[in-house]
Amino acid sequence: MTISIAHLGPSGTYSEQAAVAYANILHQQTKQEPILCPYPSIAKTLKAIATHQVDLAVVPVENSIEGSVAVTLDMLWQLDILRINLALVLPIAHTLLSHADSLANIETVYSHPQALAQCQGWLEQFLPRVELIPTNSTTEALQKLGEGSNAGAVASPRAAQLYNIPILASSINDYAENCTRFWVLALSESTIGSHTSLAFSTRANIPGALVQPLQVFAKRGINLSRIESRPSKRSLGDYLFFIDLEGNTTSPSVQAAIAELAMHTEILKIFGSYNVLSLTKN
Amino acid sequence: MTISIAHLGPSGTYSEQAAVAYANILHQQTKQEPILCPYPSIAKTLKAIATHQVDLAVVPVENSIEGSVAVTLDMLWQLDILRINLALVLPIAHTLLSHADSLANIETVYSHPQALAQCQGWLEQFLPRVELIPTNSTTEALQKLGEGSNAGAVASPRAAQLYNIPILASSINDYAENCTRFWVLALSESTIGSHTSLAFSTRANIPGALVQPLQVFAKRGINLSRIESRPSKRSLGDYLFFIDLEGNTTSPSVQAAIAELAMHTEILKIFGSYNVLSLTKN
Repeated sequence: MTISIAHLGPSGTYSEQAAVAYANILHQQTKQEPILCPYPSIAKTLKAIATHQVDLAVVPVENSIEGSVAVTLDMLWQLDILRINLALVLPIAHTLLSHADSLANIETVYSHPQALAQCQGWLEQFLPRVELIPTNSTTEALQKLGEGSNAGAVASPRAAQLYNIPILASSINDYAENCTRFWVLALSESTIGSHTSLAFSTRANIPGALVQPLQVFAKRGINLSRIESRPSKRSLGDYLFFIDLEGNTTSPSVQAAIAELAMHTEILKIFGSYNVLSLTKN
Repeated sequence: MTISIAHLGPSGTYSEQAAVAYANILHQQTKQEPILCPYPSIAKTLKAIATHQVDLAVVPVENSIEGSVAVTLDMLWQLDILRINLALVLPIAHTLLSHADSLANIETVYSHPQALAQCQGWLEQFLPRVELIPTNSTTEALQKLGEGSNAGAVASPRAAQLYNIPILASSINDYAENCTRFWVLALSESTIGSHTSLAFSTRANIPGALVQPLQVFAKRGINLSRIESRPSKRSLGDYLFFIDLEGNTTSPSVQAAIAELAMHTEILKIFGSYNVLSLTKN
């Protein structure tokens, strides 16, 4: 039996790296044959699963340096039928790839804006005069690197291997502790797991509008591992709140907290419970 | 006397539009002669003021659809000496500019990723097969539009005028209520104003770590108009919290709240009090 997994492509992106790691785990555990399906954007990756084109999707949700991946949170809220089955934490090690002879010859550097942002200190120090050009993915940046060109790209060591492009500099991210958290999403719910994610809008923008929802968890000793606000897109200053909590939706205290939370919120969406798995560098 | 104002350039960006509007206000109020100084990135715009190259900077902090401008918040925390003197809210109306004869001929669309994201629904509906290419600013996208080319750019009506490029479609943002909030930053503090911004890290990731800081304001009836988390960049799951509150640092209740807040936080930074000014479309 095969199982299809959508991810941001093409081959060589960090999303593909996370999807490959997950496919291997899945194959070991279930003997199912995973098929990877690259999509040109995160929005299209998520729509593929909502429209039953694929069984699963692996998408980035948060980087430890650059923060949330807004489109993932916004689409999860809008599509309203995706459920989180697993979180994967992937260490990120950026490299500078180029056919140029040396750093001194580099004139332009291409990459996804998140990758450029994660290396901005290194780029300012070692390549202060180069032009930084954003691309739709770290892999797309590699397409700009012709033989004999003085362009460089920020991408993974794995991309260097896949596309056979020399590495001019390794570990160029400004913070060594750089990792990205991905979610494995499906249409069916996982009921097991150490973490639960949910999101809500509040009824009114009054003092304490967010305190009450947070107290619901604090008074039960439930730790929130993350709270993130996103625009509701109704008007400036009107927000949705995304929360990750440590606990499972089948536990009585989490169930009681969610029941009480529903009274303090306008719209409440539960995205499921899931485990968190740390991947190692490859 | 002249006063220099840094902004993300070149001419024709929404940042420049906000800076021009502010320069006009400043000239009317103080008779000072404002000089606009474009910089190639938001980070460089903010460093220009921190290193005394300019007197003021106008930078985007939040869009009502796409959310926070992460680099602005991160740099404000890092530089630690910038103070908010005013907030400006600019309505955003995106247009599609091109020398092509009709929409049907458009093959690629260039723009800043935030602008592309704000028009993604329109682009999918009317130009489903075009390639979307990110640029460093909405104005940089215009440089890709040669005479007779089938490229388009998402930018402001003002940019169309400045660069004399035909408008193929107007008001193409997915949400009519699209506006961006900018901050006017200086090295000196403004003590007047209806809003105050601050940021803090918490001592430990325990249940209620964020509830206590929020209660400090709720119990005094101080409304928080925004709360935003950013990675501390120390490790995944460790955050800074940015808060905008309705009140002035000279008011006794805000002073008492901030004094109590300092006891519940690890590092606390106050970015000043300021008024919020809504600009009209030009």
